[in-house]
Amino acid sequence: MSKYRFLLINAFSLAPGNDFAMRSYTGPKETQVYNYEDLKPFLADIDWDLNPGARATHGNFPVTTKEAFMSVGNNRLPLVREACASGKYNAVVLLGGGDPGYMESREIARQYRIPVTSSAHAQMHIAGLLGNKFSIIDISESHNMQMYHLVVQYRMTDRCASIRNVNFPLPTPNHPNDRPINVERDRALQSGTSDMLDAAVVESVAAIEEDGADTIILGCSAAFWMQPLLQKRLQEIGWDVPVLEGARAAIQVAKMLVDLGVDASALAFPGERPAKWRRRKVF
Amino acid sequence: MSKYRFLLINAFSLAPGNDFAMRSYTGPKETQVYNYEDLKPFLADIDWDLNPGARATHGNFPVTTKEAFMSVGNNRLPLVREACASGKYNAVVLLGGGDPGYMESREIARQYRIPVTSSAHAQMHIAGLLGNKFSIIDISESHNMQMYHLVVQYRMTDRCASIRNVNFPLPTPNHPNDRPINVERDRALQSGTSDMLDAAVVESVAAIEEDGADTIILGCSAAFWMQPLLQKRLQEIGWDVPVLEGARAAIQVAKMLVDLGVDASALAFPGERPAKWRRRKVF
Amino acid sequence: MSKYRFLLINAFSLAPGNDFAMRSYTGPKETQVYNYEDLKPFLADIDWDLNPGARATHGNFPVTTKEAFMSVGNNRLPLVREACASGKYNAVVLLGGGDPGYMESREIARQYRIPVTSSAHAQMHIAGLLGNKFSIIDISESHNMQMYHLVVQYRMTDRCASIRNVNFPLPTPNHPNDRPINVERDRALQSGTSDMLDAAVVESVAAIEEDGADTIILGCSAAFWMQPLLQKRLQEIGWDVPVLEGARAAIQVAKMLVDLGVDASALAFPGERPAKWRRRKVF
Amino acid sequence: MSKYRFLLINAFSLAPGNDFAMRSYTGPKETQVYNYEDLKPFLADIDWDLNPGARATHGNFPVTTKEAFMSVGNNRLPLVREACASGKYNAVVLLGGGDPGYMESREIARQYRIPVTSSAHAQMHIAGLLGNKFSIIDISESHNMQMYHLVVQYRMTDRCASIRNVNFPLPTPNHPNDRPINVERDRALQSGTSDMLDAAVVESVAAIEEDGADTIILGCSAAFWMQPLLQKRLQEIGWDVPVLEGARAAIQVAKMLVDLGVDASALAFPGERPAKWRRRKVF
Amino acid sequence: MSKYRFLLINAFSLAPGNDFAMRSYTGPKETQVYNYEDLKPFLADIDWDLNPGARATHGNFPVTTKEAFMSVGNNRLPLVREACASGKYNAVVLLGGGDPGYMESREIARQYRIPVTSSAHAQMHIAGLLGNKFSIIDISESHNMQMYHLVVQYRMTDRCASIRNVNFPLPTPNHPNDRPINVERDRALQSGTSDMLDAAVVESVAAIEEDGADTIILGCSAAFWMQPLLQKRLQEIGWDVPVLEGARAAIQVAKMLVDLGVDASALAFPGERPAKWRRRKVF
Amino acid sequence: MSKYRFLLINAFSLAPGNDFAMRSYTGPKETQVYNYEDLKPFLADIDWDLNPGARATHGNFPVTTKEAFMSVGNNRLPLVREACASGKYNAVVLLGGGDPGYMESREIARQYRIPVTSSAHAQMHIAGLLGNKFSIIDISESHNMQMYHLVVQYRMTDRCASIRNVNFPLPTPNHPNDRPINVERDRALQSGTSDMLDAAVVESVAAIEEDGADTIILGCSAAFWMQPLLQKRLQEIGWDVPVLEGARAAIQVAKMLVDLGVDASALAFPGERPAKWRRRKVF
Repeated sequence: MSKYRFLLINAFSLAPGNDFAMRSYTGPKETQVYNYEDLKPFLADIDWDLNPGARATHGNFPVTTKEAFMSVGNNRLPLVREACASGKYNAVVLLGGGDPGYMESREIARQYRIPVTSSAHAQMHIAGLLGNKFSIIDISESHNMQMYHLVVQYRMTDRCASIRNVNFPLPTPNHPNDRPINVERDRALQSGTSDMLDAAVVESVAAIEEDGADTIILGCSAAFWMQPLLQKRLQEIGWDVPVLEGARAAIQVAKMLVDLGVDASALAFPGERPAKWRRRKVF
Repeated sequence: MSKYRFLLINAFSLAPGNDFAMRSYTGPKETQVYNYEDLKPFLADIDWDLNPGARATHGNFPVTTKEAFMSVGNNRLPLVREACASGKYNAVVLLGGGDPGYMESREIARQYRIPVTSSAHAQMHIAGLLGNKFSIIDISESHNMQMYHLVVQYRMTDRCASIRNVNFPLPTPNHPNDRPINVERDRALQSGTSDMLDAAVVESVAAIEEDGADTIILGCSAAFWMQPLLQKRLQEIGWDVPVLEGARAAIQVAKMLVDLGVDASALAFPGERPAKWRRRKVF
Repeated sequence: MSKYRFLLINAFSLAPGNDFAMRSYTGPKETQVYNYEDLKPFLADIDWDLNPGARATHGNFPVTTKEAFMSVGNNRLPLVREACASGKYNAVVLLGGGDPGYMESREIARQYRIPVTSSAHAQMHIAGLLGNKFSIIDISESHNMQMYHLVVQYRMTDRCASIRNVNFPLPTPNHPNDRPINVERDRALQSGTSDMLDAAVVESVAAIEEDGADTIILGCSAAFWMQPLLQKRLQEIGWDVPVLEGARAAIQVAKMLVDLGVDASALAFPGERPAKWRRRKVF
Repeated sequence: MSKYRFLLINAFSLAPGNDFAMRSYTGPKETQVYNYEDLKPFLADIDWDLNPGARATHGNFPVTTKEAFMSVGNNRLPLVREACASGKYNAVVLLGGGDPGYMESREIARQYRIPVTSSAHAQMHIAGLLGNKFSIIDISESHNMQMYHLVVQYRMTDRCASIRNVNFPLPTPNHPNDRPINVERDRALQSGTSDMLDAAVVESVAAIEEDGADTIILGCSAAFWMQPLLQKRLQEIGWDVPVLEGARAAIQVAKMLVDLGVDASALAFPGERPAKWRRRKVF
Repeated sequence: MSKYRFLLINAFSLAPGNDFAMRSYTGPKETQVYNYEDLKPFLADIDWDLNPGARATHGNFPVTTKEAFMSVGNNRLPLVREACASGKYNAVVLLGGGDPGYMESREIARQYRIPVTSSAHAQMHIAGLLGNKFSIIDISESHNMQMYHLVVQYRMTDRCASIRNVNFPLPTPNHPNDRPINVERDRALQSGTSDMLDAAVVESVAAIEEDGADTIILGCSAAFWMQPLLQKRLQEIGWDVPVLEGARAAIQVAKMLVDLGVDASALAFPGERPAKWRRRKVF
Repeated sequence: MSKYRFLLINAFSLAPGNDFAMRSYTGPKETQVYNYEDLKPFLADIDWDLNPGARATHGNFPVTTKEAFMSVGNNRLPLVREACASGKYNAVVLLGGGDPGYMESREIARQYRIPVTSSAHAQMHIAGLLGNKFSIIDISESHNMQMYHLVVQYRMTDRCASIRNVNFPLPTPNHPNDRPINVERDRALQSGTSDMLDAAVVESVAAIEEDGADTIILGCSAAFWMQPLLQKRLQEIGWDVPVLEGARAAIQVAKMLVDLGVDASALAFPGERPAKWRRRKVF
């Protein structure tokens, strides 16, 4: 038995009939992981289960607004609690960009002494181990502002050089999937390039040259597929800069926390009636 | 007809049978507003309706954990959308401390050009108009950390001197209502004092003398009743310091925004496909 | 009688013979308010008087240097004290950009429990209620640096994306009025455009795209006339961004403070011998 | 002839009959310098003149309020301009704590390429050459808040550990000189101690132990006499910490700037129509 | 063969005859690791070698001054280069508190694409994954200031609540080993307590209650033995707060970086003539 | 005898045969000072000796990597100690950019009550006396990152607008001296211009227009020769901005500290067993 017993929880699952399907919502767990081929070696030493994510209740389309992030975050909390209570896992990995429900999940899981990790937070902390400032390459205005929210919430404003938008927004009922990311991905995987990848190169270079970034992280999980390609492209033009990706980051941080036997500070995520309380909190 | 047509939305309503009832969840709107007597003159020039808040789904007890804040925040969003879509209101005031669903509500209401205000954000901004640093008097560890979260989210860390805990936690199924706040309130209103009010005085003085606060704001709505009493007590011992309270702050900020004809920046709260998009966001 | 009894005080008045006259220094109060047409609805529910401002002693020309700002600020203080002592007003609104004498006026008025508001401070606080970062559109190098000074003084450096200069400096004895702003204003009001307005559009767009601004505020009162036009122009090209203006901001903040019954913290603006004193102040 | 030709300008002079006279307002220049004996060796290599300061117009009593600081600052500006225009001086040293008129004086003198220095700014910069954080020992609530204002204005909030109040307020018409500082000084000089000096020791130790200060600076010029005594007392009890004082600091910084041939950046203190202007200013 | 091939390098080795020997400088590698028993399970899956550290050239006594830290840091660099060039290792772990030579080692190893980790940096980053603010429990004035230096250098000032001193300074030629830490350690391991451990409990509680810490990290490696005991003591008195330790933190971060295939950003640690260069760096 | 008795210590000396010789490593002290002609008037009133710097042990080529900076810094410490112990000097001036060994030298010299100054720290503090933000004009990627390190270490991130690279890297064994700076210097001194100087003008203007700098400082000592030429060029194109240089800055700050009788705070640079110790340090 592995020392790692993880539950990976997708941010949400959609009902059949949506026109945005970059991963399966059913079937073998491997097919439900967005960029499984990239993650495969990282999952090899883990006993892992996959939860497809609660069925989305905000609508049958992907998440980019704050409203939808709150909805899927909230829907994810019972899954986290159940996973912790089951005794089957020693860590929970929240898949997906934008970290919906991450802070709340840590509060829940802390009571079970189980660490929870998530894509954006993990990437930002790893970036801090590699350099001085990171930029986030991300997909659309509303998703950018969710990343903005996270940078502020995690007190990373001094370390974040910029959020850069490649502007490939996800489809919604009101807006057609006019620049489908899965088409971009397939094209890039086949031919080595695509408009979205090209835009990511352009914005990464601008982040480096204009904003002062020395590390690149990816925002939305719908951009995670770009990691190896973007890393390669930047290297080819001479920019020797690490490009991170959220799922691997979250998985590896979870392993580290499990190894160290830590989860979350009970002072930062207090329960209902802690044994000791503090008169004063400061920033 | 008043120029102000506001919907006030409580954070949540509980089912009958809970043992924490400082306000009614049914009946005339006035009885459902927590500290109505304090707010009465501020509501006088408003055409206002009250929504009792969505029935709580996290359990039949008050909110202090992050998990519960997310739940009631999420439950409140449809009410906000409905209010905006109805065309009946020109502002939405979110009652309750801890601001559940505030950022998301602004995103929704911005599309209708309707401002949304909430207790903590409004108080913090008014404090900035009065002095250099504020402290938050609040009720319990978990609620403190929600306020902590808000101070960070609103980028008020430089302006917040401290969060001070009087430690009167709200009851939960696991924990009896051993220090019932409504008893404290009634005692204070009758006799002029109570343990909770005394603790608030002690912590306010510590905030002033030790933490550098020059303005006091209140965290949980279950502490809002203390405003006039705490103001008076501090004045009596010689500390001439403003004490704010959330509901009045949110109502008055809403009036100001309505008067000015502004709601929220569409760049900070973008819709799905804005007319113009930015390549770059910075902090 | 209105619940609002305000004295509006212009920053200064000039003697006849100056070649910069965008408003009258005598006559009906309405003619002495710089952008009265814009303010008219905001003044409707106020019993207001107008003080034309002390006659300038730094020279007979407008204010843009620090030296002149200090002079007119100092000259304004007796007017503030007199207004407070008169018992006729419950708020003082300092008109004009650059906020001359604002901090000192608050110190004076605090002793009478009367709030004082001013254009830059009010705009910056309202911007904080609307978005994450504001930029200031302003008229000239020396005035820019006064705005810079205010941003630092008000501890708004984290919220101010930039100050942008349209470079229409006010005339001085040494420098002709070679780009007269009133000509720009008249042209813009008639034809919808002018060089100054065009420059404001260019700089606002740069503030949005390059500096990260999501809200625009105006610096010098000689730029306040642009508010509706700049708002319209930015909307037309697709930038859905609030544009604020100083006089309305100061008036509305004053109303809010009067309604709330607050003025300024006595700890931030102490009198000569306060009842209680603090051993320690921190930042 | 010395390479240093300085004009020292006192903050203000009072009319005969005031009950606070720690220095002369007439007579030989040496008698008009507050702590001349301490400064004597620092003045030895300077050709210096002393201006007694403009006669105070805020009243015939010392300065501690913002209002009075603005008044004496404004009154000082013509003296600065005259000194610069005279061609007699290569630096202007503004005596007195609280730095009234300092920013404005630099703007004026920059046009003559003459540096201006002042007590608080000079001390804060020297403190930065000695350690990580300084605390300010100062005399009263209102003067403390002037120092607070300066720390913010000079962007020294990260370097200032605290402002500590010994609470020996200066007399005003409304308040008797009940704790006369000159009595404290004389007692201390004779006996080695006094209540004010004792309080300064207590607050300095608190600044070191509680606030993290590693350098002590003095606020009001009425506290400058304590420098050698406070330094000695702290050394005696084992705290090896530098204690600075404003007049020497300002004089020595002026010498350094004269030697280096620099005064103030014309971009920070622009004239009316600079040769080049910047579209954008940032913080 | 393990996927981890690490070289652990002690900060320095002393010659025989020094009176401070908490670990061996010769013999089996296990005996040369300071707190081997604590680290044993973390080393189990690593093929590791130990370098005893270069023989100290600053003197034959432990390191606490900046001068000595620079000396042992400099002496360590050839060992790092040799280890990287050998091709035997895929990570280098710098043992010891105070991180001597860490930044320079990363610069060297980056050229070999090998990550380097160190105790303080690793602990601070892990603390960021657990809570909001950490405090450092450390042994003496001079070592405290080395930790201070690191907190600044790593831009962790916003996250560091305080450095707390238990004041058990290491011996030097001029100062006897009057409070020998190995005696404290042995006493604590046998009896469960010691003066040093008691002081660590007192200071940790003060860090929590007064400074706002929610996570505790240890400064000097001579304090690392306290980790399990301090963790236990704090739990017993009701403070549910994570206590970290440097060697495990550095080892586990190294594993994570190896797994992720990252080392350090070449933009942060550039080589002599990088393929691409940036015109501009910002903070 | 002068009141100033200074030892100037070069950063390092190279052995004969290196191909980078902009100054002599032997002969009269004047020939060993890099930009002696510029410094001559500043040295006129000093009894000064020059130490050529310890012979470099990192290799026989100039310093730009962190590794080399640590090496030459460490090699310089015995010279500092010897100078202090000799009783011959009342200040030590560390020549060279990048400040190798500066913090450690201050720790050593503080015990002798002797101030130590260095180029980058001195320039940054003087810049703070002149304006709001400085930019650093510097020579190469690796040297830029040393300057970056210093800006962080000195807590100047808020004051540093940018580091700008002219990209004239110094030669190393692996890289030819393909853009020799001494050729640039000679050409500039003769003809008034050179590619390096042109690049410095371009980057200075970008620093002013794009980054917000109002003061220019120079990074590497190999760029110090540009000071008068760059100052002149910027003035000619209308940018009235001070350009500083390191050696003069360090010399003049040393004079100021000697005059004031201060060196470094013993709390910031504690000795082995200070008389008093602090339980707590904060940032």
